[in-house]
Amino acid sequence: MRIGIVGLGLIGGSLGLDLRALGHQVYGIARRPDTCVAAVTMGAVDSATSDLASLAPVELVIICTPIAAIAPTVQALVPHLSPETVVTDVGSVKGELVKEAAAHWPWFVGGHPMAGKAEAGLAAAETHLFVNRAYVVTPLETTPAAAIALVQALAQSLRAKVLTCSPADHDLAVAWISHLPVMVSSSLIQACLQEPDETVQVLAQSLASTGFASTSRVGGGNPELGLMMARYNREALLRSLHSYQTQLASITHLIETEQWSQLEATLAASQQARPEFL
Amino acid sequence: MRIGIVGLGLIGGSLGLDLRALGHQVYGIARRPDTCVAAVTMGAVDSATSDLASLAPVELVIICTPIAAIAPTVQALVPHLSPETVVTDVGSVKGELVKEAAAHWPWFVGGHPMAGKAEAGLAAAETHLFVNRAYVVTPLETTPAAAIALVQALAQSLRAKVLTCSPADHDLAVAWISHLPVMVSSSLIQACLQEPDETVQVLAQSLASTGFASTSRVGGGNPELGLMMARYNREALLRSLHSYQTQLASITHLIETEQWSQLEATLAASQQARPEFL
Repeated sequence: MRIGIVGLGLIGGSLGLDLRALGHQVYGIARRPDTCVAAVTMGAVDSATSDLASLAPVELVIICTPIAAIAPTVQALVPHLSPETVVTDVGSVKGELVKEAAAHWPWFVGGHPMAGKAEAGLAAAETHLFVNRAYVVTPLETTPAAAIALVQALAQSLRAKVLTCSPADHDLAVAWISHLPVMVSSSLIQACLQEPDETVQVLAQSLASTGFASTSRVGGGNPELGLMMARYNREALLRSLHSYQTQLASITHLIETEQWSQLEATLAASQQARPEFL
Repeated sequence: MRIGIVGLGLIGGSLGLDLRALGHQVYGIARRPDTCVAAVTMGAVDSATSDLASLAPVELVIICTPIAAIAPTVQALVPHLSPETVVTDVGSVKGELVKEAAAHWPWFVGGHPMAGKAEAGLAAAETHLFVNRAYVVTPLETTPAAAIALVQALAQSLRAKVLTCSPADHDLAVAWISHLPVMVSSSLIQACLQEPDETVQVLAQSLASTGFASTSRVGGGNPELGLMMARYNREALLRSLHSYQTQLASITHLIETEQWSQLEATLAASQQARPEFL
C-alpha cells in the first residue's frame, strides 16, 4: 500500500520504520528540509518533501503533527486526495478534533496509538514501538465502515492492542488514567515546595525515595504535553479533577476525624482495585 | 558487640543478617517460637527467645516491632537493661514516640532506616538491605552524645546514608515525601472508580498504562502501612494534605479559567523541581 505520513517526529518516524518493514511504500511530509533528509537516511520513509501535493498517489494518510495542526492539515490535504483516501491521525485527544476533521473529509478516522517515550523527535523513533500497546480507533457513527476497517488493520499489523470506541468515550477514559494523573502528580511536586522551614525542605529532598519518585514521575514530565491534555480535553479533565477532589477530601476527613477503620477500608479498597487497571 | 533485636520481621531479620556478618553477637526476641527457630536457622540471630530478660548482657537494643509496640517495649525492657545500654528503634514516625521512649529510658535514640520492600516478614529479610538507603537518627536535645554516636556508627556500618535531625523535623519531612504521596495516590484510584458509565470505566481500565501505574503505585500498597502513617503522623500529614489541596485547587482553577500560559509555567516549575528530590 502507498501510505503518507505527515509529521516526522517520534510517532511518525516510528510508524514509518514499521510500515516500510511491512512492505508499504511510505511518503513522508515534514516542514524542515533537514528532517526530510534525516527520515530518508534512517529508513523511516521512502521519500519526503514539505509539499502535501506529493501525497496524491497514497491510499492512506496518517497525520502525526502536534494536535493543534491536525484538523488544519486535513483541510489543507483535501484538494490533493483521491476519493475514498482514508485519513487518520495519532492525536491523544479525540472529541472536537474528530468532528472537525470529519467535516473536512468524511473518510477521516480518529486514532490514538498509546505509545509514548520520554524523548521526542525523529531521532527517538524506533521499530516495534506499538507492539502490545493500546491503539484506540475512534470513528463517528457516520464514518464509512471500510475506512474504520483499514485503520483497525493498520494498527493490528503493528501488533498493537486495537480498541474501538467513540471519540467522547476515549476522551473521558484518558482523562481518568492519563490526564488526571499528570495534574495530581504535578500538584504533589508543587505542594512539597511549600514547606516554609528550610531545614525540613532540605531534609524532605534528602529523604525522598521510590515512593515520591513514582508518584511524581508524570507530574515532572514535559509541560507541553500536560498543557495539551488540559487544553484539548479540558471538560473531561475538569470532571475527573472534581471527582478526585471529592475523594481526596473524603480521605482527609477520615484522618481529621480519626475514623481509622474507615480509612483502612478505603486504603484496602484502593489496593484491591488497582490491579484491575494494570 | 552484643546486640539485641526485638521483633524479627523484614527489618529486624535484615539487620540481624548484616550485623552478624559484621561480627556482632545478635540476641533475637520474637513472640512466636517458630519465628525464633526460623531466625536462628537462617542466620539472622545467634539465639532467640521470647524473654526480654535474655537481653541483660547486650550493649545495644534495636526495637523492630510495629510502631504501637515500640514505647511499651522500651518500658518492659527497662528492668533488664544495664546502665547506659543504648536502645534504638526503626519506627517510621518519630515525634511522640521518641519523647515517650526517652521518658522510660534516657539512653533511647530514635532511628528510621528508610528501606522498605513490598514483602513483609522474616522470610523477606535480606543482606545489604540498608546499603545507600537513608537512615535517619532522631535524638532529643537531652540524648547523651555517646548514645547518638553509637546509633550513627551502627547505621554507618550498614553502609546507609546517615542523616541526623529532630523527631519533629523527621515527621514533617516524611509527611511530604512519603505519607502525602500515599493519600494522593490512593485518592487517584478511588477517583477512577467513580466513573458512572460502565463502558468508559472498562475502557479506562484497558487503557491505563505506565502513567497510571506509577502514580497509583503507593496508593495501591499495604493498607496497614498507610493507616499507620495517618495515625501516628496525623498532624504533619494533615498539614501536607491541606497544602496539597491548595496546589490542586490552583491547577484546577488555571484549567477552569483557561490560563494556559500560567498552567504551562506551573507544569514547567514541577518538571524543574522534581530532580531536586531524587
